[in-house]
Amino acid sequence: MSSTEENESIANVDACFSIKFLGTGNAPGVPVRGCSCDVCIKAKVNKDLRRESCCAVIEFAEHRILLDAGVFDLKYRFSENSLSAILLTHFHPDHVQGLFPFRWGGNDRIDTYAPNDKEGCGDLYKNPGVLNFLTLTAFAHFYIGEVLITPVPLAHSKITLGFCFEHLNVKIAYLTDTVGLPKKTEAFLRYWEPDVMVIDCAFPPQKTRPRNHNDINMVLTTYEEFKPKKMLLTHIGHQLDLWLNAHEQELPDGISVVRDNETYIF
Amino acid sequence: MSSTEENESIANVDACFSIKFLGTGNAPGVPVRGCSCDVCIKAKVNKDLRRESCCAVIEFAEHRILLDAGVFDLKYRFSENSLSAILLTHFHPDHVQGLFPFRWGGNDRIDTYAPNDKEGCGDLYKNPGVLNFLTLTAFAHFYIGEVLITPVPLAHSKITLGFCFEHLNVKIAYLTDTVGLPKKTEAFLRYWEPDVMVIDCAFPPQKTRPRNHNDINMVLTTYEEFKPKKMLLTHIGHQLDLWLNAHEQELPDGISVVRDNETYIF
Repeated sequence: MSSTEENESIANVDACFSIKFLGTGNAPGVPVRGCSCDVCIKAKVNKDLRRESCCAVIEFAEHRILLDAGVFDLKYRFSENSLSAILLTHFHPDHVQGLFPFRWGGNDRIDTYAPNDKEGCGDLYKNPGVLNFLTLTAFAHFYIGEVLITPVPLAHSKITLGFCFEHLNVKIAYLTDTVGLPKKTEAFLRYWEPDVMVIDCAFPPQKTRPRNHNDINMVLTTYEEFKPKKMLLTHIGHQLDLWLNAHEQELPDGISVVRDNETYIF
Repeated sequence: MSSTEENESIANVDACFSIKFLGTGNAPGVPVRGCSCDVCIKAKVNKDLRRESCCAVIEFAEHRILLDAGVFDLKYRFSENSLSAILLTHFHPDHVQGLFPFRWGGNDRIDTYAPNDKEGCGDLYKNPGVLNFLTLTAFAHFYIGEVLITPVPLAHSKITLGFCFEHLNVKIAYLTDTVGLPKKTEAFLRYWEPDVMVIDCAFPPQKTRPRNHNDINMVLTTYEEFKPKKMLLTHIGHQLDLWLNAHEQELPDGISVVRDNETYIF
């Protein structure tokens, strides 16, 4: 489990936009229970090699926004009034499970933007606690502080939105969970021209099109299509980590595989 | 977060029945996010004072049974083929949240006994992974190894069952979450005469009957009614911990307040 510094400040410079990845793993995380592959064996012993489920925090000016909630120690990281908002890509448990204990306690009320998914997850809607759920519409942009945010549909097994952030001429697209991209999202991104793409890549190269999540082949195709200055891979599974041990240097220079607790500043 | 020794053995003596409490807190746990009470301030610093959500493991002969799943590190504690079964009292997230990452990985198939709650929690039914869900009927007893288990209805805001374990003439009733007891469960327990009662006690003494969980007053009434040799309090909230700091010595000798990672052997 990652560190528990409360309300950690990621970047002290106002004129920047930072993203810290609290969790970069898929639903089972790394290590996978019961797995004796080289990656999982090492991750059991070395916490630095572990991957919690997806979660990130972005910071700009005085704002701090949580992006999904796959990690379990949120109450130790973000005390009362320390978050401007929460953005949820979708309601699969590995993206919201950290909210179950987090929603209780505190007198703040946190705007929690989410897709229009009537099912939600567990009793989050019924007993929201400090979470003030707000429903997003695809392509209907909104602002948090001075950051323009456009939600874009993704291709997944549950209604899912990616988020396109624009701040001080930097454009960052956060695109997980997805397998490929819906045509209208592709068209928007072609027009919008992201500088940075954070994208779901759960699997090593597959022989056939994977289900629900990208593999390396699909991510490389997307990279060639959009040519962002930087592409960051997240939602990593242990089999991809195994493949990367032998092949990471074959990836284009513009592509990086993120690790838990890494911060990128733009 | 509690220790992560894999497949830890609790008791090496075959002829005993042990229960280890992995989590003894209510849904927010201790500390509560954003709380500056004396208990929460101390628990932020001292991990021994923390309470994760409800979870216990019982061991007898060669069997190890998980009882609810409120803690998040189950995959580090219980590797492949290390659990005989899982018993779920109900599907509130604080009792099943640890199953979300745990269900993926491993080639075992774990019998997971649960109340007949069609809703479940999140996508646990849809994507059970290694969990083999089996539906329980109130008062319809069953065996795991040589232990006789009788599920009994509890009084809670979601369909909930307690579990009465009988092994080598020791009778242990695990009764959380509940506020009071349904009449038929009371009658069964009066007939069955438990030696040990593990019972939900979330609150300090309240002026009016509490909702969904017992307070100290109700637990004392139950203790007087059944006179078990031992009563163990679990599902503790931070306000009860605060009250206990001044009043724990006033409780009858037969009542103990459990802490995370404590083991009792019978």
